[in-house]
Amino acid sequence: MCLLCVQAQVLYDFTAEPGNNELTVKEGETITITNQNIGGGWVEAKNSKGEVGLVPEDYIEIQKALSGGGNVAVPDLSFFDAFAPTAASSSDSALLQASNGNDPWSVWNADATGNAADSWAAKPEGTETAKAASNWNSSAQGHFQAYQGPGKTWDRRMWKDHYRYPYRLSSFYELLLQFPGFSKSGPELYLLAKLPPKGKDKIPMGEVGPVWLYPETQLDCVVADPKKGSKMYGLKSYIEYQITPSTTNRPVNHRYKHFDWLYERLLEKYGSAVPIPSLPDKQVTGRFEEEFIKMRMERLQGWMTRMCRHPIISNSEVFQLFLTYKDEKDWKMGKRKAEKDETVGVMIFSTIEPEAPDLDPIEVEQKCEQFSRFTRAMDDGVKDLLTVGQEHWKRCTGPLPKEYQRIGKAFQNLSSVFTSSGYQGEATLTDALTAAGKTYEEIATMVAEQPRKDLHFLMETNNEYKGLLGCFPDTIGVHKAAIEKYKEGDKLVAAGKITPQEKTTMAKRVSTMSYALQAEMNHFHSNRIYDYNRVMQLYLEQQVAFYETIAEKLKQAHARFTTM
Amino acid sequence: MCLLCVQAQVLYDFTAEPGNNELTVKEGETITITNQNIGGGWVEAKNSKGEVGLVPEDYIEIQKALSGGGNVAVPDLSFFDAFAPTAASSSDSALLQASNGNDPWSVWNADATGNAADSWAAKPEGTETAKAASNWNSSAQGHFQAYQGPGKTWDRRMWKDHYRYPYRLSSFYELLLQFPGFSKSGPELYLLAKLPPKGKDKIPMGEVGPVWLYPETQLDCVVADPKKGSKMYGLKSYIEYQITPSTTNRPVNHRYKHFDWLYERLLEKYGSAVPIPSLPDKQVTGRFEEEFIKMRMERLQGWMTRMCRHPIISNSEVFQLFLTYKDEKDWKMGKRKAEKDETVGVMIFSTIEPEAPDLDPIEVEQKCEQFSRFTRAMDDGVKDLLTVGQEHWKRCTGPLPKEYQRIGKAFQNLSSVFTSSGYQGEATLTDALTAAGKTYEEIATMVAEQPRKDLHFLMETNNEYKGLLGCFPDTIGVHKAAIEKYKEGDKLVAAGKITPQEKTTMAKRVSTMSYALQAEMNHFHSNRIYDYNRVMQLYLEQQVAFYETIAEKLKQAHARFTTM
Repeated sequence: MCLLCVQAQVLYDFTAEPGNNELTVKEGETITITNQNIGGGWVEAKNSKGEVGLVPEDYIEIQKALSGGGNVAVPDLSFFDAFAPTAASSSDSALLQASNGNDPWSVWNADATGNAADSWAAKPEGTETAKAASNWNSSAQGHFQAYQGPGKTWDRRMWKDHYRYPYRLSSFYELLLQFPGFSKSGPELYLLAKLPPKGKDKIPMGEVGPVWLYPETQLDCVVADPKKGSKMYGLKSYIEYQITPSTTNRPVNHRYKHFDWLYERLLEKYGSAVPIPSLPDKQVTGRFEEEFIKMRMERLQGWMTRMCRHPIISNSEVFQLFLTYKDEKDWKMGKRKAEKDETVGVMIFSTIEPEAPDLDPIEVEQKCEQFSRFTRAMDDGVKDLLTVGQEHWKRCTGPLPKEYQRIGKAFQNLSSVFTSSGYQGEATLTDALTAAGKTYEEIATMVAEQPRKDLHFLMETNNEYKGLLGCFPDTIGVHKAAIEKYKEGDKLVAAGKITPQEKTTMAKRVSTMSYALQAEMNHFHSNRIYDYNRVMQLYLEQQVAFYETIAEKLKQAHARFTTM
Repeated sequence: MCLLCVQAQVLYDFTAEPGNNELTVKEGETITITNQNIGGGWVEAKNSKGEVGLVPEDYIEIQKALSGGGNVAVPDLSFFDAFAPTAASSSDSALLQASNGNDPWSVWNADATGNAADSWAAKPEGTETAKAASNWNSSAQGHFQAYQGPGKTWDRRMWKDHYRYPYRLSSFYELLLQFPGFSKSGPELYLLAKLPPKGKDKIPMGEVGPVWLYPETQLDCVVADPKKGSKMYGLKSYIEYQITPSTTNRPVNHRYKHFDWLYERLLEKYGSAVPIPSLPDKQVTGRFEEEFIKMRMERLQGWMTRMCRHPIISNSEVFQLFLTYKDEKDWKMGKRKAEKDETVGVMIFSTIEPEAPDLDPIEVEQKCEQFSRFTRAMDDGVKDLLTVGQEHWKRCTGPLPKEYQRIGKAFQNLSSVFTSSGYQGEATLTDALTAAGKTYEEIATMVAEQPRKDLHFLMETNNEYKGLLGCFPDTIGVHKAAIEKYKEGDKLVAAGKITPQEKTTMAKRVSTMSYALQAEMNHFHSNRIYDYNRVMQLYLEQQVAFYETIAEKLKQAHARFTTM
C-alpha cells in the first residue's frame, strides 16, 4: 500500500452512474482512499457516511502528497533551465505548460472565456506545448456535460504521470522525456546525439520531393458496435468498441483507455514530426448515455481514419499492434515493448534519412516561418467558422423552428376560425390553410433537424482541424528551436562547447528535420484539400436537398388554394 | 375672426417639412394663431420667436376654448341617457367612445402597449364605437414615424367636428347624428321613425337569400401617379393621386383629404350596415417621402378596391361622385349635396326593403350572436398572424441575413487563408470556397429582401382585415341594440310609450336590419375567401420561388467542389 494514499480531497463534483459501484462526491469533500490499485483511472474511496464506491482519480487530490508542499510529486527541475531552448521564465511555468500539453482541454477551455484566443501569440513558441482539442460539442451543442475545472489540474496530472511510468525515473533522459514539453522542445538531444546506425525502424520517404512514402493501398478501419463490458467480477463497467482494419478484416476490441494509451504512445514517439490530434473528450459523467457513446464512437472513427491515412503512423509498430493484436498476451507484450521504446521525442528524426541534398538553413527557416504563419491563419479561420456555425446551430435548433411553428399554428388557427363561419363553400380554403399550416410545422421540424444532417459534419471536420492545428505550434516549435540552436553553432564552437564537426552534423540534422516538416506539411495540405472538398460537398448537397424539399412541400401547399 | 382663436397650446411635436412654409413646434409650447382660415387641416401660427408658419390643427389645442371648462365644445348630453341603448355609464364616457370612433388610431395604439388587446370584451358592445385601423406599418416595420399621442385627442376632434359641420347644430336629430356613436347605436331612430316612401335611393337586394344585388360588371379603379401639387400661390404643398375608374377610364385627381372626406361620408351614411374600414394612417411628418407616398398609395388602392367591390358602396352617389366628377364645380356641388344627405346612421335601413318573409326575432338574435363570435374570433386570429408575421419579418431582415453573411464571410476567409498555403493544386478548392461564400452572401440578401416579396402582402391583407374587423363591433352593436329595443317592446306598449302597431313595425324593421346584416356577412365571407386564397397563393408562390432559387444557387456552388 502506498503511504501517500490515505486521505484525499475532492476537486470536482462527481455523480455516480447508477448500478455501477460508483460513489457520488462533492467538490471540497474529504474522502478516504480504500483501494488505490483499482486501475483504469479509478480509486475506491469511502466518504464520511461510510459509503464506499469508485471515484475517478482525476477528480481527487491526495492530501498527504500535498502536505509536504506543492512540489512533492514534482522534483526540482530548475537545473533543466540550461537546456531549455527558449526563455521559459522558470521551471515551474515550463512544467505548467508541459502539463497543459498533457491536458488537451485547458487551453481551449480558457479559450471559451475569450482570454486565450491569442494563445498562439501569447506564449514563446519554443515552449508552446498546448495540445489543441476542441470542446465544441460539450460547450456549444450542450449535448454533454463539459469537462470541469481545467487549470487546477496540473499537479494532479503530474502525479499521475509519475504513477504511470515509474520505470522512467531511473535515468536523466527518461526523466526529461517524461515531460513532453521538454523532450520535444529540446532538439539538441537529437542535433548532437551519437546516433546508432539506422535499422528497420527507418521511416521511408517518397522519391520525389519532400513527401512521405505512401503505401499502395491505404489502410482504413471501422470503429463500430460499442458494447458494455465489465471487469473485476462486474465491479467496473466500461464501453468496448470493435475496430476492424481493412487489412485483416478481423475485428479487435478496445476501450477508450486503450485509445488513450495509443494516443500517448504516438504523441511521445511521433509528436515532434507529426501533429497527433487529441482524442475526443475524456468525459466521465454520462459516459454510458447512448447519445454520448454514439458521438464518441463517431469521433474515435474520425481520429482513427486520420491516423490510418497517415503513412508514418499507420505503418508504425504500435499502431499495427493496436489494430491487429492476436490475443491478450500479444497485446500485453506489444504494450510493454512500445512503452520501452526509446526512439521518442526529437529522436524520431534519427530514423529519417532523406535521399536529397541538404537544405540551406536560411531556406529551412523561411519554410518553417511560412508553415507557422499558415497554420496560425488557418487556425483563426477554422475558429471563426466554428463560432459562426455554433451560432447558426443555435438559431436553427432554437428560435427559428419555433417561429415556423408559430406561423404554422397561426395558419391553422385561422383555418379553424374560418371553419366556424357557417358560410357555405368554406371547406376548400380551410383545408388548404390547415395544410399550409402543417407544412410550416413540418418546415419547423426540418429546420431543427437540418444541422445534424449538414452543419454537424462541417463542424466536426473543422473541429478536427482545430485540434490538429493546435498541435502545430508544438511541432513547429521543435523545428524553430533546432534552427535557433544551429544558429548558436559558431558561438558554441568558439566557446569550445561543440566541435566544428558537430556543427556540420547539426546543419545536416536541421536539414533532415526540415525535410520531414515539409513532408508533413505536404501531407497536411493534400488531406486538407480532400477533407474540405468533401465536407463542403456534403454540406451543400444536404443544403440543396433541404431547400428543395421545402420548396416541394410549399408547392403542394400552394396547389390547394384556388381563386377560381 | 374667430374670438376663440388667439392662443393655442402645442399637443405634439411637429417638424416642418423644409421649403413648405411650415413651422416646427414642440409639445407644450404656446403659439399664437394668426390665421385659422387656412383650411385643409392647417392653421397659420406664430411662435414666441416671432416665426410664422403653418401647423396642423390636430397638433394644437385652442386655449380659450378650454378656459371655459373641458366641455365648452361639447354640450351637456346627459339627457340622452334615456335613449342610450346600453348601459353607458355617463354621457362623457359615451362621448369619449364616440370620439375614439372618429380616431382610428386610439384603440390600436393602446393595443400596441398590450392593454387593449381585449378591447372587444372590455367595452359594452352596444356602445362600442372603436374604428379599427392598423398601425402595423408604422410601429412594426418602422418605415414611417408613428402617429403620436392618441388618447389625448378627443376634445380636439370634437372641436373640429363642430367646426366642420356647423349646420348640424340646428336640430336635435342633427346634433344626435353628429356623434356617430349615438346615431349608430340609437336604432330607435329608425325602428320608430315615420318613414317617407322609398324613392330612388332604395338599396337593391339580390333575389336569392340575404345577399346584396351585385352589378354585372364589377367596378374597379387604379390609384396611381402621385404628384406634388400646391395651393394658395405655393404656400401649401400636397400630394395628389390620380384615380382612374374602370367604367369611364377617365382619371380624376384627389388629395388624401378628399379620400378622408369620402371615408367620413361613407361611414356616416353606411356605417350602421356596412363596416367601412379606416383609411391608411393620417400622417403629417414625412408625408413627402417617396417610400411613404408609395406605401400610402398602395394602401389607398387597397381601400378603394375594397370599396369598389362593395355593391352598395360602389353604387352610391357619393362614391360615384368621387370617381367620376366632371369638373371642380361638379365636385363642389356634389360635395355640398352629400354633406346635406340626411339618410345617414341607422336611417340607412329605411332604404332597404327585402323581398322575403320577416325573420323570427329569436333567429335574428342568434345570427347576430354568431356573426359577433365569428368576427371576434377572426380578429384574434388575424392579430395573432400579424404578431407572428412581425416577428418573422424582424428576424428575416435582422439577425438571419447577418448570420448568412457571416457564414459566407467565414467560407471566403478560409478560402483566402488556403490561397496563402503555397501548396500546388489549391486553386479549385479556393475558387469553390469563395463561390460558396458568395452564394451565402447572396442568400443573406435574398433572405432580407424576401419579406417585401411575400410577407408584405400577407401582412397588408391581414392588416386590412384587422381594420375591417374592427368596424364590426359598431355595426353589430347597432343590431344588438335594435334587438334589445324590440325585446322591450311589450313593456313599452304596456307603459303606453308605443302603440302595438309600432311594436309590429319594430319587429319588421329588426328583421330588415338582420336581412341587411346577413347580406353584409355573406359579402364579407365571399370576399374573405377570395382574399385569403389569393394572398396565400401569392405568399406560397413567392416562398416556393425563394427556396427554389436558394437550392439552385447552392447546387451551382456544390458543383465546384471535387474529390476526384
